[in-house]
Amino acid sequence: MMNIKTIEKGGVTTPQGFIAGVAKSGIKKMGRYDLALLLSQVPASAVAVFTTNKFQAAPVVLSKRHLQSGVCKGVVVNSGCANACTGEKGYQDAVSMAIAAAEVSGCSTEEIVTASTGVIGVHLPMEKIIGGIKEAGANLTAANGHLAAQAIMTTDTFPKETAVQFELDGKTINIGAMAKGSGMIHPNMATMLAFITTDAAIAPAVLQKALNWANKESFAMISVDGDTSTNDSLFVLANGLAENAKIEEDNSTAYHTFRDALTEVCLNLAKMIAKDGEGATKLLEVRVINAVSWEDAARGAKSIVASSLVKTAAFGEDANWGRIICALGYSGAEFVPELVDVYLGDVKVAENGCGLDFDEDRAAEVLNKDAVVIKVDLQQGEYEATAWGCDLTYDYVKINGDYRT
Amino acid sequence: MMNIKTIEKGGVTTPQGFIAGVAKSGIKKMGRYDLALLLSQVPASAVAVFTTNKFQAAPVVLSKRHLQSGVCKGVVVNSGCANACTGEKGYQDAVSMAIAAAEVSGCSTEEIVTASTGVIGVHLPMEKIIGGIKEAGANLTAANGHLAAQAIMTTDTFPKETAVQFELDGKTINIGAMAKGSGMIHPNMATMLAFITTDAAIAPAVLQKALNWANKESFAMISVDGDTSTNDSLFVLANGLAENAKIEEDNSTAYHTFRDALTEVCLNLAKMIAKDGEGATKLLEVRVINAVSWEDAARGAKSIVASSLVKTAAFGEDANWGRIICALGYSGAEFVPELVDVYLGDVKVAENGCGLDFDEDRAAEVLNKDAVVIKVDLQQGEYEATAWGCDLTYDYVKINGDYRT
Repeated sequence: MMNIKTIEKGGVTTPQGFIAGVAKSGIKKMGRYDLALLLSQVPASAVAVFTTNKFQAAPVVLSKRHLQSGVCKGVVVNSGCANACTGEKGYQDAVSMAIAAAEVSGCSTEEIVTASTGVIGVHLPMEKIIGGIKEAGANLTAANGHLAAQAIMTTDTFPKETAVQFELDGKTINIGAMAKGSGMIHPNMATMLAFITTDAAIAPAVLQKALNWANKESFAMISVDGDTSTNDSLFVLANGLAENAKIEEDNSTAYHTFRDALTEVCLNLAKMIAKDGEGATKLLEVRVINAVSWEDAARGAKSIVASSLVKTAAFGEDANWGRIICALGYSGAEFVPELVDVYLGDVKVAENGCGLDFDEDRAAEVLNKDAVVIKVDLQQGEYEATAWGCDLTYDYVKINGDYRT
Repeated sequence: MMNIKTIEKGGVTTPQGFIAGVAKSGIKKMGRYDLALLLSQVPASAVAVFTTNKFQAAPVVLSKRHLQSGVCKGVVVNSGCANACTGEKGYQDAVSMAIAAAEVSGCSTEEIVTASTGVIGVHLPMEKIIGGIKEAGANLTAANGHLAAQAIMTTDTFPKETAVQFELDGKTINIGAMAKGSGMIHPNMATMLAFITTDAAIAPAVLQKALNWANKESFAMISVDGDTSTNDSLFVLANGLAENAKIEEDNSTAYHTFRDALTEVCLNLAKMIAKDGEGATKLLEVRVINAVSWEDAARGAKSIVASSLVKTAAFGEDANWGRIICALGYSGAEFVPELVDVYLGDVKVAENGCGLDFDEDRAAEVLNKDAVVIKVDLQQGEYEATAWGCDLTYDYVKINGDYRT
């Protein structure tokens, strides 16, 4: 990952030629921003990864169609209403959003993709939405990227933005991004909404390949509550304004550099989402090392990070490592129980599948931190994977006990 | 299920020839019963289903070995310590338990199976255990069946017992049972500890077949928290004292009658476990009907009942049916989204995959009950399955935030 530099306070409008507009259209209560329009000033290579949920929200269906060309100019997003399970009218509403966004952006409807997040099964308040799109179209600037990151939030407690910079062919390339996600987060392909922009020149086919790689290592490795939403969408728009030699092949150095940078951006966002899990007080990081394959390491790490019992123990700061072992045991990962070592931070709590007489005070110190690292050494192979999640708290129950009101 | 009658206050010693002894051996705090010995006065056909967790507790390993003969006389169980992830010493401790139980029961060590439940990764306090086994051996009576059901409890709030009676060949057959389970409950084969006794005469091979059937329809269909434990064991002992013509074939009427009765016993226990889920205030019953196969119906029902978001909505009595649809969508079940109807009790809340303008007050009434029935009609095939679980509450977080202390 050398030569990839993080841009302080960077976001979705950091790359050249991207601007954003926002509106308080009145879908969300209390006069909060709830609509964002993100636009590339020139047509961009555009690809995405969508939810694997069999119920796919109307904006997911529409965006899949519009991305068949591999090119788009803009994204219109609303929060507060997911436009999922809304039938034919829901689809028409998504089309109307795209038409309105295309009008204010001066492009064709097919060059716009849409995304929605919020309550399932409710129709969009179209009058408010269309008004919001007009309002957002009137304040398109690079400076509004940060407000766009706020406008897409639902139960998120902080906006999620990141950007990196690196060189290709002597040209400076930027990748910027924003995401939302806090509940209904579980690794089954892209999870949540995320929008990535870059000024790199890259062909859609290789861009998709790079995105699939980055997604597998990042968003697919987080879990808040085991629920995969109907609206998950992860978009990348690459407008080529950096004027690097267009990346056309996936065996080039340029492709690998770009892929690494994109993966870093996705990882940054994924960790922010895990940390901001509904009601969470801690980020959990679970590393499974020395597995016989990446898939086995990933299976084990995801199972541990998603276990309700591991998550409540983390909240209670209880060094109950038996639950870690237990979640590894039902993960389906290949391993030999008698070889497994478990660490909480740097405290070894189990060795060769058996408990150690460890220092409870040191373990409590580890668990008291904002970020808890659990390491499981399978002592078998050479592969490793990391998954991220959060603790399960009273506030998760509170937030979700009455989400709609 | 005709001719299968429930026995009021029946339990594990209801069938002829079964007796139980109990002890307060001091593993659990506050002088509670924590050890039970269950004995058949004659050798019984004995089979079991065990956890699919790759980490198998020492008593699971021992019981598998001892059941290879298909015959046993007794079960010794302790609560408060799971004897899991305890290595070779843990296995020797399980053997010592079996030896001590065999001594007080007057049978061979191989005729005893063992089970343990409680904290993972801690060694059994063997002096207390052996003392407890001697104490239990001195009070073996049929009357102590109810105390045995108490002795195996951990975070359970009530003992779980059931018994049924039916006729075969003019003989009266009894099936009795007890179980424990409240957390670390998830359908992946038998989940928790359950002990079933019967005076039926039945060969081990067909008994195993009947148990697998009953398990699939009951314990495999419940979830409290998505965690499959290291100690789950479901035993059946059939001692033949009812003197029916021994059931040797699985295509006989007798086999099917027995299997139905066994399934009813398992269902009764499974529902008690779901209702007593840690911190639960409600039993959730999810029926998926008109699926193209039983497996698809079961996949959908289990996914819905295990969803943290469905569970918190049930706790908050929020008719957020979008989460039901969402959990069905990621279940892997085969169905057509545009055909799905959803009911909360008798209130239809979604039709053909879209939300209806339903009566929120009537839906709130349904959700306010102790048992909430969710019905999902896939409108495609002829199969149905039901899964049971519970709501996710503040108390689940509280109970599991600090389980060990």
